Amino acid sequence: MTLEAELRGIVGTAQVLQGGDLAAYELDWRKRWRGRARAVVRPGSTEEVAAVVRACAAHGASIVPQGGNTGLVGASVPDDSGTQVVLHLGRLNRVREIDAANLTMTVEAGCLLQAVQEAAAGKGLLFPLSLAAEGSCTIGGNLATNAGGTQVVRYGNARELCLGLEVVTADGEVWNGLSGLRKDNTGYDLRDLFIGSEGTLGIITAATLKLHPQPGTVSTALATLDWLDAAVDFLGLAQAQLGAALTGFEVMNRFSMDLVRRHFPQLQQPLPGAAWTVLLEQSSNDRPHDAAQRFEDLLALAFERGLIGDAAVAASLEHSKTMWHLRESIPLAQSLEGLNIKHDISVPISRIPAFVRAADEALERAVPGVRPVDFGHLGDGNLHYNVQAPEGESAERFLSEREAEVNRIVYDAVMAHGGSISAEHGIGLLKREELAQRKSPVALKMMRAIKQALDPKGRMNPGRVV
Amino acid sequence: MTLEAELRGIVGTAQVLQGGDLAAYELDWRKRWRGRARAVVRPGSTEEVAAVVRACAAHGASIVPQGGNTGLVGASVPDDSGTQVVLHLGRLNRVREIDAANLTMTVEAGCLLQAVQEAAAGKGLLFPLSLAAEGSCTIGGNLATNAGGTQVVRYGNARELCLGLEVVTADGEVWNGLSGLRKDNTGYDLRDLFIGSEGTLGIITAATLKLHPQPGTVSTALATLDWLDAAVDFLGLAQAQLGAALTGFEVMNRFSMDLVRRHFPQLQQPLPGAAWTVLLEQSSNDRPHDAAQRFEDLLALAFERGLIGDAAVAASLEHSKTMWHLRESIPLAQSLEGLNIKHDISVPISRIPAFVRAADEALERAVPGVRPVDFGHLGDGNLHYNVQAPEGESAERFLSEREAEVNRIVYDAVMAHGGSISAEHGIGLLKREELAQRKSPVALKMMRAIKQALDPKGRMNPGRVV
Repeated sequence: MTLEAELRGIVGTAQVLQGGDLAAYELDWRKRWRGRARAVVRPGSTEEVAAVVRACAAHGASIVPQGGNTGLVGASVPDDSGTQVVLHLGRLNRVREIDAANLTMTVEAGCLLQAVQEAAAGKGLLFPLSLAAEGSCTIGGNLATNAGGTQVVRYGNARELCLGLEVVTADGEVWNGLSGLRKDNTGYDLRDLFIGSEGTLGIITAATLKLHPQPGTVSTALATLDWLDAAVDFLGLAQAQLGAALTGFEVMNRFSMDLVRRHFPQLQQPLPGAAWTVLLEQSSNDRPHDAAQRFEDLLALAFERGLIGDAAVAASLEHSKTMWHLRESIPLAQSLEGLNIKHDISVPISRIPAFVRAADEALERAVPGVRPVDFGHLGDGNLHYNVQAPEGESAERFLSEREAEVNRIVYDAVMAHGGSISAEHGIGLLKREELAQRKSPVALKMMRAIKQALDPKGRMNPGRVV
Repeated sequence: MTLEAELRGIVGTAQVLQGGDLAAYELDWRKRWRGRARAVVRPGSTEEVAAVVRACAAHGASIVPQGGNTGLVGASVPDDSGTQVVLHLGRLNRVREIDAANLTMTVEAGCLLQAVQEAAAGKGLLFPLSLAAEGSCTIGGNLATNAGGTQVVRYGNARELCLGLEVVTADGEVWNGLSGLRKDNTGYDLRDLFIGSEGTLGIITAATLKLHPQPGTVSTALATLDWLDAAVDFLGLAQAQLGAALTGFEVMNRFSMDLVRRHFPQLQQPLPGAAWTVLLEQSSNDRPHDAAQRFEDLLALAFERGLIGDAAVAASLEHSKTMWHLRESIPLAQSLEGLNIKHDISVPISRIPAFVRAADEALERAVPGVRPVDFGHLGDGNLHYNVQAPEGESAERFLSEREAEVNRIVYDAVMAHGGSISAEHGIGLLKREELAQRKSPVALKMMRAIKQALDPKGRMNPGRVV
C-alpha cells in the first residue's frame, strides 16, 4: 500500500491534502521559504498522530510538524524536495481540562494561543503567554519554539508556563507526560528537552499549562529617557520597588517610534520623540488606590533621580491599550518602511547599553547612515535589533547585498557581550549555519548525540536546528 | 602510571584521600548507605575536575560526584565495591560574579547554599532557594537534584532559579553554558537535562543563578483547619488575594504538631492542636501598613468563609521565625519518636485531600493504629507523607517488616491520584527500582537513550536514577 493510502486510512480521505493550493502549509509567515509537501496530513487525535508517524517511518518519509505556521525561522514548512509530509496539528484543538484549584489546564497542541488565554480567563484565571501572533499561533508551536513575548519579565517563557507534555516520539509511540505537578523529580527532564526542540525530536500533541490568578489592577506608563543606561537603572529601580508586580518593561529607540509616527499618524503618541522610550506595566492584586499610588511613586522617584524625563500614565484601560498598540505597531511600521534585516538577540541586561553602542558604531562604520530599529523586552535582556537601509536607499538591494555582513557585525557584538543569537524565535533553517559556527562545540556535540538518540533515522523535521 | 598517581599529579597529594576514616564521604546523611571509595579526590578548579574525569575514563573507573553529601536517596556515596572514585566538589567554592543589574550571580558548585544566599543578601538581593540542609548542602547538589524547599510556590524549584551551567561531560570536556540570559533559544535545553540528573550525565561545576529583589515586608501566620479540603480552598483564596506575594503555604497534620509538642515542649505553640495547621507567608514590597492590612484582610475573609478556625499573626520577625521553627522541627521530632517510613510525594493540589484520605484509610486497614506524619508544601502539591509505627510498637521492627508494604500502599495511592513518587528528593539508589516499575516505559526508554548518548560507558554515578 502506498503511504498516501495508509494516511487516508488513518485520518480519512478529506484530511490528506495533495495538489491544489497548499500555500497555507508550504509558505512560511515571512514569505522567505516556499517548499513543496508530499502531502499535508491533518490528524484529529493523538492516536492518529502516532499512527501517521509510524506510517511515515515505515515508508521512510520525513515529517514536518506544523501548528499555526507563524514561526519566523523557517522551521514549519517543508523543503522543496516534495518528499516531506506536513503533519498539521490544527484539529487537535480541545481544551481537555481546567483544574482551577491546581491552577492548571490541559490543552491540545493545535489550540490557538488566544483560545487558551480565553479559556483560562473564562475561569477567572490568567494564562500569561502573550505575543503578537496570538490570534494565529498554536500552543504546540509556542512550546516547540519556547516562545517568549511581553510578560516574560514576570511569568517566564513558554517553558516556565508548562508542567507536562504529551508527545508522539519518532518511533510513533505516545509518551503521556501530562502532569499537573509543580514538583516531580523522577528522572531526566524530558519535558524541557522537547520544549524548544522545534519538532526535531518528536511531536508535542498536548500540554498541561500553569495558570496564575488574574491581577486586579493593571497600570501602564510611557516614559522618555536620554540614555539607554538610564533604562537599565530604571528597570532595577522598578524591580526593587514593584517586585513581582512588574509585568512589562519594553524599550524603543527614537527611530522605531518615528517609524510608527510616520506610518500610523492616526495613533496618538502621548510623549514627544526621545532617544529612548520605555513602556512600563504593573499588575497587582492590591487595592486599586494603593497600586496606583505605588506606581506613581516609582515614576516620581525615577524622575527625581534623573533617570526619566517626561512620563504619561494611562488613565484608563483603553489608554493603556493604546500605549501597547504603539509598541506593537513597530513591526508593521518597519514593513511599510521597507524590508529590513532582523535580529532577535539577547545579552545580560547589564550589558545592553554597551552592546547597543558597539553594534550601532560598527554598523555605522560599515554602512554610513544605516538606521537601527531597536526595540524589545529590556526586562528580559531581549532586543529586536533590526537594521533598516539608509534613508532613500533601496531596501531590497540593501538586503541582498549587505545581509551577511550586517548579521556578522551584529552577531559578533552579541557574542562579545555574552549573548544569544536567538532569544525567542528559535533556530529553524534561518540560523542553523550560524548556530553551527557560534555555539560551543561541546554543546553541539551533545545536541547531536541527543538527536541521534531520540530520532536515529533523522526523520523528525530534518535539517532544522542541528 | 596508576590512577591514584595520576590523580595526585592533577590535584596534589593532599587532595587524594585513601584509607583512614572516610566516613564523611562514604556514609550518606540518613546513614542508610555505607560504601567504600577507591579514592576521594578533591579538585580545586573546573580544569582539575575535567582532568580527573579524563584520568578516571582512561583507567575505566567510575565516578560518584559529591557536594555536601546531604542527599536523601543515596545518590552521593560510592557503592561497596571499592572501585568508585568520589569526586568531591567542596573546594570549588568561589562566588565568581554578582551582576546586580542583571539580577544574576555565578557561583561554583561547591558553594554552600547558605553562602550563596548570604552573598546575594550582601548586595541587597535575594536567592530564594531555602531548605533545611542549607548550612551543609551545596548549590551543585541542589541543582543536580533540582531541590525544592519552602519558597517554591513563589520562586520555583532550583531549575527555575538557574539560567546557565558549567558542566564537565563524561568525556572530560568542559561545556561552558554559563549564561546570564533569560531568553536563549539556541538549540536543545541541555541546562535542564543536567539539572535533576543526579550526576549521572556529567558534573555541574558552576552555575549562573537568578536573583530577585529582596521583599521589604514579610508577614507570617498560623491558622487551624478542620478539614484538608479547607486548606486547598484557603490556598486558592490566598493566591487570588495575594498573587505573587504569597511565598509560603505549608500544611501540618495534628500528629506532626503533637510530635513537636512532645519532643520540644520548650517551643511555644501559639494555637491549640487541630486536625490541620497551615503556615502562611506573604512577602511584599508594599508599604508595611498596606501589606499587613492585606494579610489580615485575607485571614478575616478565610474566617468568614468558614475555612479557618483560630489564627495567629506573627507580631515580629522573631515571632515569625518561631512559627517556621515549629514547622522545621517536625523532621527531628519524628526521629526522636523513632525511625519511620518516609515519602516525598506530590499530587495535583486539587487532589491532595482525596489522596490523603485514600492513603490514610488503606494504611489503617493494613496496619491498624498506624500514625501518618503528614506535612509539607501544600502550595506545591508536595507532602512528606511519612508513616510512623503504631504507638508503643518497635520502630525498627515496623521498618524491617512493613516498609515494602507501606511503600506499595502509599505509591499506589500516589499513582491513582496522578502524582509523583519523588517530588523534590530525587531517585538515587533508593527509588531506582520503584521508578523502573512505575514510570512510563516510553519515558524510561528515552531516559536510557539519553544516558547512553551522553555517558556511553556508563561511568558517571552508575546505578543511580536509570
